[in-house]
Amino acid sequence: MSITIRKLDSAMPDFNAQLRAVLAFEASEDDAIDQAAARILADVKARGDAAVLEYTNRFDRLNAGSVATLEIGQQELQAALAGLSPTRRDALQTAADRVRAYHQRQKAECGSDGFSYTEADGNVLGQKVTPLDRVGIYVPGGKAAYPSSVLMNAIPAKVAGVQEVIMVVPTPDGVKNELVLAAAAIAGVDRVFTIGGAQAVAALAYGTATVPQVDKIVGPGNAYVAAAKRRVFGTVGIDMIAGPSEILVLCDGTTDPDWIAMDLFSQAEHDELAQSILVCPDPAYIAQVEASINRQLPLMPRHEVIRTSLTNRGALISVRDMDQACDIANLIAAEHLEISAADPQRWADRIRHAGAMFLGRFSSESLGDYCAGPNHVLPTSRTARFSSPLGVYDFQKRSSMIHISEAGAQTLGKIAAELAYGEGLQAHARSAEYRLKEPAK
Amino acid sequence: MSITIRKLDSAMPDFNAQLRAVLAFEASEDDAIDQAAARILADVKARGDAAVLEYTNRFDRLNAGSVATLEIGQQELQAALAGLSPTRRDALQTAADRVRAYHQRQKAECGSDGFSYTEADGNVLGQKVTPLDRVGIYVPGGKAAYPSSVLMNAIPAKVAGVQEVIMVVPTPDGVKNELVLAAAAIAGVDRVFTIGGAQAVAALAYGTATVPQVDKIVGPGNAYVAAAKRRVFGTVGIDMIAGPSEILVLCDGTTDPDWIAMDLFSQAEHDELAQSILVCPDPAYIAQVEASINRQLPLMPRHEVIRTSLTNRGALISVRDMDQACDIANLIAAEHLEISAADPQRWADRIRHAGAMFLGRFSSESLGDYCAGPNHVLPTSRTARFSSPLGVYDFQKRSSMIHISEAGAQTLGKIAAELAYGEGLQAHARSAEYRLKEPAK
Repeated sequence: MSITIRKLDSAMPDFNAQLRAVLAFEASEDDAIDQAAARILADVKARGDAAVLEYTNRFDRLNAGSVATLEIGQQELQAALAGLSPTRRDALQTAADRVRAYHQRQKAECGSDGFSYTEADGNVLGQKVTPLDRVGIYVPGGKAAYPSSVLMNAIPAKVAGVQEVIMVVPTPDGVKNELVLAAAAIAGVDRVFTIGGAQAVAALAYGTATVPQVDKIVGPGNAYVAAAKRRVFGTVGIDMIAGPSEILVLCDGTTDPDWIAMDLFSQAEHDELAQSILVCPDPAYIAQVEASINRQLPLMPRHEVIRTSLTNRGALISVRDMDQACDIANLIAAEHLEISAADPQRWADRIRHAGAMFLGRFSSESLGDYCAGPNHVLPTSRTARFSSPLGVYDFQKRSSMIHISEAGAQTLGKIAAELAYGEGLQAHARSAEYRLKEPAK
Repeated sequence: MSITIRKLDSAMPDFNAQLRAVLAFEASEDDAIDQAAARILADVKARGDAAVLEYTNRFDRLNAGSVATLEIGQQELQAALAGLSPTRRDALQTAADRVRAYHQRQKAECGSDGFSYTEADGNVLGQKVTPLDRVGIYVPGGKAAYPSSVLMNAIPAKVAGVQEVIMVVPTPDGVKNELVLAAAAIAGVDRVFTIGGAQAVAALAYGTATVPQVDKIVGPGNAYVAAAKRRVFGTVGIDMIAGPSEILVLCDGTTDPDWIAMDLFSQAEHDELAQSILVCPDPAYIAQVEASINRQLPLMPRHEVIRTSLTNRGALISVRDMDQACDIANLIAAEHLEISAADPQRWADRIRHAGAMFLGRFSSESLGDYCAGPNHVLPTSRTARFSSPLGVYDFQKRSSMIHISEAGAQTLGKIAAELAYGEGLQAHARSAEYRLKEPAK
């Protein structure tokens, strides 16, 4: 049964409306889920460990006697690592090393040392950069347990200098994912608790007798986790609430169509809501990719998910030229943007909005997902217009440093007082004026 | 009538509990306000300009015929600037120049150029930094209209390279604040609409026929504005939802007590919920500050607000030594931290969490509020543990750049495939394997 993927042509008069329809996605906010998450948060805030234990035993079908028994020690993490096949262990270690190297470079290049400068009259102004003290990483359990996500969330935190990284991962029916535990060992996670859901978010946000309170919670989770994270935002920091994953491929029509078809599959196989879009100026090439999709789809183990995703949310878009393809890419602001073309940098220079850009035919998104080095936690649903990949900077914060000299206070005091009076804030004005040698007024 | 401010002593056995009680603050989330904001958002999303016009005419008691007539042109902004007294205009201009200079330095020092590096096998990895396209700045109308906030929000955006900065400011009963308009002129705001409330947030987040859609909304507002911002987060970026303003003064007991009393006033005068705390190792000095507070309070025009704020939320804390004062400062993670002491840098080096640090006796917070240069939009309510002053970085975003060479794909493809199979994502694995010269399996 061949698959029907929406086809758009930028020459069609209603192209913009059609494109908007393809992109339209409303995250369903289920009020019942939100209220349930709110109740669990309040309960854990009030009752601490006792509530965490009850919810964990109930939802994950466990019989734990205390939250302390839900902690996995470093020895067990190391054992999980030692238990992997050498090939898999080496792959995980190399991926971690590359992710660490990239984020170390990011730390060095992105102003992590802060700065300061001295003005002529002796004022010193600047910015101090410090790591967060303690961070929580949520790792989903069950099917969608991705060891690569452990690396991508924990390593930037450790590179930033976070002293304590606490991982929570639910283990429904007590089933642990050895690859996830091995990844935690490699990434240098400090403590691991096998708890999940809104109760794990609550434990991290408020702290309990057993689970320490963190300053920020990152990592993906189900709808309850997302609702809980939204609600604790402010008490702790959170990362973005991720929408479905997306790939946008700009192709000039010279890459093997099988490669592009598989790249579209690699996004579509994540889940039914994932979005895969190809934009190309060559209609004949688009037809080749479509033929390849139909030929290869039955061979994929996750063909049902891929079919649903491509049918409901996929698109093949024919455009005038690569310039127009870039305009569309800026409109879509995709999480993953592959520029599979000759001279990809030429087109990359025109892109303003994208979570990550994969340049050239050999840069398949899957390389970035695992081991290229840059982070795979990326802004989805057009949020690349205003947000960034997860990075070292997400685990640091800045403080302004203001050291005004006596001489400096003479100049600045008059300015501040003038503006403070203008705003009707007399104490502000007087506070500045007290530092003047010749008191005003 | 003398004022009673809570006094704490770190030597008291229940000191930690008392301190927690002082710091406790629950932002009231009014469900009725949230629902009203949600209705306005949905209405503006559906009906655009017509809804914005109706709400504006109703809530601000105007009779505007169209949203277009609510726009203030550049000429009017320039006229407002020209109409200021020379002293005030110069003060505003100097403040703007200093804020711009600091943020230009911040841009230069904080990795705004991005980076890239080439690996041995030819892979190029890096990060591209781009400004947001278009930003909305919310400026409150009425009493709490602060021209300094216009500078602090708009200038970093322009320094970042944002092409279009759109300001919204309600004008209840048609009353415009000339100082706010003048600040907009100086800051280089591109367009100004006299709209406010949830309807202004909606117009900026979704766009209307007249008001362009922005990528991020920053700036303070009332409870409706805060609720609306929370709800549009994800469609656009937002800054932090600010809590009440706070100052924490660490003083070694050698600064003129009148100065410290006035510094505490300068925070307390903002509003009844503002928090002013003094920490000092010298009980006799604390008594001097308290006496000064009582002596000076009746002289302040905003004495009622100050009295309420200091009575309900203020505290004078006696500690063992300045080391302990620093520990408490790290716990409080204050928005504004004054270190009014000899050798202030010695103590600043021990501070991990603070929005802005004001070092030495001449660095009154009010200088930083107006014209020192660093931003006065700072993390409140202990969020300095994980967030930062508003800065150039808030108006930029990063994209990862991944250009894998053919040689690089041979190494990385095998690693990615190994890990993808481990996660059960076969299309990811195949996508990587297609780039291998000697296909696997």
